[in-house]
Formats: sequence, C-alpha cells, structure tokens
Amino acid sequence: MKTRVISSIVIGIILAITLVLGGYVLGGASLIVAQIAYYEIARVLGVFDEDGKTGLLYKVGFVGVLLHYILVIYIHDTKTYLLSVLFVFFAVMVTYVLTFPRYKVHQVIGAVFAFLYAPLMLSFIYLLRIRENGEFLVWMPFVAWVCDSFAYLTGRAFGKHKMTPVLSPHKTIEGGIGGVFFSIVAGVIFGFVMMKVKGVDAGIIPQFMVITLVAGVISQLGDLAASAIKRDRDIKDYGRLIPGHGGIMDRFDSVIFVTPFIYGLVVFIMK
Amino acid sequence: MKTRVISSIVIGIILAITLVLGGYVLGGASLIVAQIAYYEIARVLGVFDEDGKTGLLYKVGFVGVLLHYILVIYIHDTKTYLLSVLFVFFAVMVTYVLTFPRYKVHQVIGAVFAFLYAPLMLSFIYLLRIRENGEFLVWMPFVAWVCDSFAYLTGRAFGKHKMTPVLSPHKTIEGGIGGVFFSIVAGVIFGFVMMKVKGVDAGIIPQFMVITLVAGVISQLGDLAASAIKRDRDIKDYGRLIPGHGGIMDRFDSVIFVTPFIYGLVVFIMK
Repeated sequence: MKTRVISSIVIGIILAITLVLGGYVLGGASLIVAQIAYYEIARVLGVFDEDGKTGLLYKVGFVGVLLHYILVIYIHDTKTYLLSVLFVFFAVMVTYVLTFPRYKVHQVIGAVFAFLYAPLMLSFIYLLRIRENGEFLVWMPFVAWVCDSFAYLTGRAFGKHKMTPVLSPHKTIEGGIGGVFFSIVAGVIFGFVMMKVKGVDAGIIPQFMVITLVAGVISQLGDLAASAIKRDRDIKDYGRLIPGHGGIMDRFDSVIFVTPFIYGLVVFIMK
Repeated sequence: MKTRVISSIVIGIILAITLVLGGYVLGGASLIVAQIAYYEIARVLGVFDEDGKTGLLYKVGFVGVLLHYILVIYIHDTKTYLLSVLFVFFAVMVTYVLTFPRYKVHQVIGAVFAFLYAPLMLSFIYLLRIRENGEFLVWMPFVAWVCDSFAYLTGRAFGKHKMTPVLSPHKTIEGGIGGVFFSIVAGVIFGFVMMKVKGVDAGIIPQFMVITLVAGVISQLGDLAASAIKRDRDIKDYGRLIPGHGGIMDRFDSVIFVTPFIYGLVVFIMK
C-alpha cells in the first residue's frame, strides 16, 4: 500500500510537469506511455512471436503508433486518425500475408486491436492540450482517477450490492455511484478554477458537470474492460513497470477509455 | 465454371445499375454488401455465440455498420469514420463487460476487426461516387476484378515461379505481373473514356495509370489476405451466397482492400 501511494505521487508529479509544459514534452510523454501500453496489450493478446520475443508483427504496430503520434503532434487534427487506423490495418495484413504461416489470425487481429485500444485513444490528450484553455482541459481525463479512488472509498464505506459479481466481485453499485458523484464534484471544481483564473462565464460549471458525469461512468467501464481482458487471459497485471500498480495499462485503463469521450464532449458542448 | 460465369454476369449487371444510379441506390446496395461481408467475417472469426446463433455481440456490430452507412450517406465525409470506429469499439467493449463471461476476448476483438475489414473500407465507394466525375471514378475499385482475372489468365499461360508457395500455391509471379499490367491498361482506358466523354485534360491518363498500378498490387494483397484467414480458420469459402464464387467476401475480397487506396489516391492526385 505504501509503495502504491509513493508511486501515485511520483506519477502525479511527472504528469503535472508534462501537462503544464504541453507541446513536445506532452507529445513525447504521450508517445512513450502509448508505446508501453501497446506493448502490454499486444503481449497479453499474444501478438508476440511464439518464442516470446516481440517479433515483426509487434514491430509493425510499433511503427504505426509512432506514425500516429507524429501525425497528432505535427498535424494535430482528428482527420489523420483514419489514416493511422488504415495504415496499421494494411501494414499488419501485409505482414500477415508475406510471412504466412508465421502468424495466426488472432495475432494479426490483436495487433490492430491493441493499436486502437490504447495508443489511438490516449492521443486525444494532446488534442485537448492544444485547444483554447487547453492547460485546464487537459486535466479532465484524469478525473478517471478521482472516480476510481472515490468508487473504492465509497464502496468500502457503504458497498452492499455487487455491480458485476462474476467479473469484479469487489465492485459495488454504491461504490460506482460514489465514484460518479465525486467525478461531478471534480467537474464543479474544474469549472470554478477556470472561472476564477480565466474569467470564463459561470455556464462552464454545468458543462463540466455533464462532461465529468459521462467520464465517471465511462471510467468504470474502462476499468472493467481492462479487468475482463485480464480475467480472460488469466493474468493479474498487464505489467510490472509501476511499483504497486502493475503496468501502464493497469494504471491508465480508465483514463484511456475516458479520453475520447472528454474530447468529443469538449468539442461538442463547449463550442 | 459455367455457374461462375453466369454469376459474374448477373453481379456485373446489378453492379452497373447501382453505380450508374448512385445516390440512395448505391448507398443501400453498399450497406447490404457491407452487412453480408460483416456477417461472413464475423462468422469466420468466431464472433457468433457458442450455439452458432448470431448473438448479441454480432448484433452490436450490425448496428455499428448501419450507423456508419447512415453517416456516410448523410454526412459523406471521412471525418465521421473515426466516430464509427470509436462507436463500434466502445459498444463492443460495453457488451463484453456487461455480459461477462459470455464472450471471450478473441470474439470481442473479432467483432471490431470485422467492422474495419469490410464495412468501413467498402464505404469509400460511396465517397468516390459523390465526387466530381464520380460516375467514372466509382468504377475504379473494380479494377481489382480486372487484375484478378488477368492474373489468373497470365499465370495459366506463362506462370513458372510461385509467388507464395505456402499460402496460395497456384499464384505465380508472372501472373501477378500480368494482373498489374492489365490493371494499368484498364487505367489507360478509364482515362481515355473520361477524356472523350467529359473533355478532361490528357493528364488524366498518367494519373489513372498510377492509381490502377497501386490498385493492381493491393488487389493481390487483398486476395491473399482473405485467403490467409480462410487457411488459418480451415474453411474453403466465406459463404455460399454467390453460386460458383462462395460468399460476398470471396468475391469482394480484393475490391474491399483496393477501395480506400483508390479513394486516397484520387483525393491526393486529382485533388
């Protein structure tokens, strides 16, 4: 537990520096996190070679992730996302065909899915940062961590009814509600800070409440989705990179899920 | 062989009517072909329920395909493609989590992949049709069939060196070159027709040659990719819908692969 808390503080500090600086620092940090997450998911989905080495198929996806972040950082427009998806799809399929029968179809599909899962979704953080008032908006995906923490605390205090008895027996409906409630509270605080610092209209608060309400719900689905894959593949953690937490995917599972929703809602509601 | 030829003629006639009429006719026909292709790939990848019925997970993808074509027909812009991909991804993941442990991770991933494979790629045909001179451009993905046929004929006549001995032992390098050569010839004819009918500049011919050269190569990769999945899953055909051909995927495998490239090159080269 102590290791876990120390890790969280270290991650928090690195994250704060990255989000405040933005630009290439945030772009580079996102790329690194995305590559590690891609590695972890690809490994869990069996994309690697039979001998356990990363192999050609993984490397093709690695190049896809790199290309995607170059497009995001230099063109920073969702228009290029389709290009990245198609690039990964075709590059993976060409690898499959030209090396046949080295890879099985589930590996090929896993490589494409791993790309969509973390690298693609996580890249919306950069797009949030470069928007107007991005220095505030970029923090919003991390409301997922607020939701996680308060779902845990509320669940411990009041939890009675299991949410998903088979998948995550410790999660309760009471905890889930608590998590969403405190996500909305975080939204109010976000809005209040932006009002005070940037002098924006008070209408920002209900907008942020809607965004963080959705984020709170999606956050828990992201957590459950990552758990489902782990249960399915019979592993405990995605990795061992972060002491007390597991891998990047164990810590960023809900943030990753939440990010495209936050971005979509910000574009849709705030403009 | 006779059945196969008759089927080809019937498909050719339906296709011609659809492409000439365009609009809702083409939109509707593309949606139907896309849904059947999605069904066939989903079945082959094991997305269906254990009892062999289509099941909830398949149906979620079905809704995704429908939504995607509504976006393509009414908004007709690649901007919406990312929305469709994210919708399918999240809808499938939510289904996975809420019905856990009904589906396995390979089924979940298969549903997303099946959506990308055929429905998404095929939808570029509609975008080609609504472009300026779309009544000519929309025929170009079918250069894949020219390539297939001439690769077969050239291979029979001159084929000596096997292209992919393990995957498709009957394909030869000579056949592949013949297929690409006649694709380029088709490009010249396309360009010539557009010059004569629409009075466009002769510069269209080298542009079309480049596009059909790429299409000829990609076409064969599409064919091999569909074959690789069939070999992997140990099936002969994707379906039995088209007498003498198999399923929609057996007939459209190369067209599907070629379509996004044609669209991309048309946008990029012809501006």
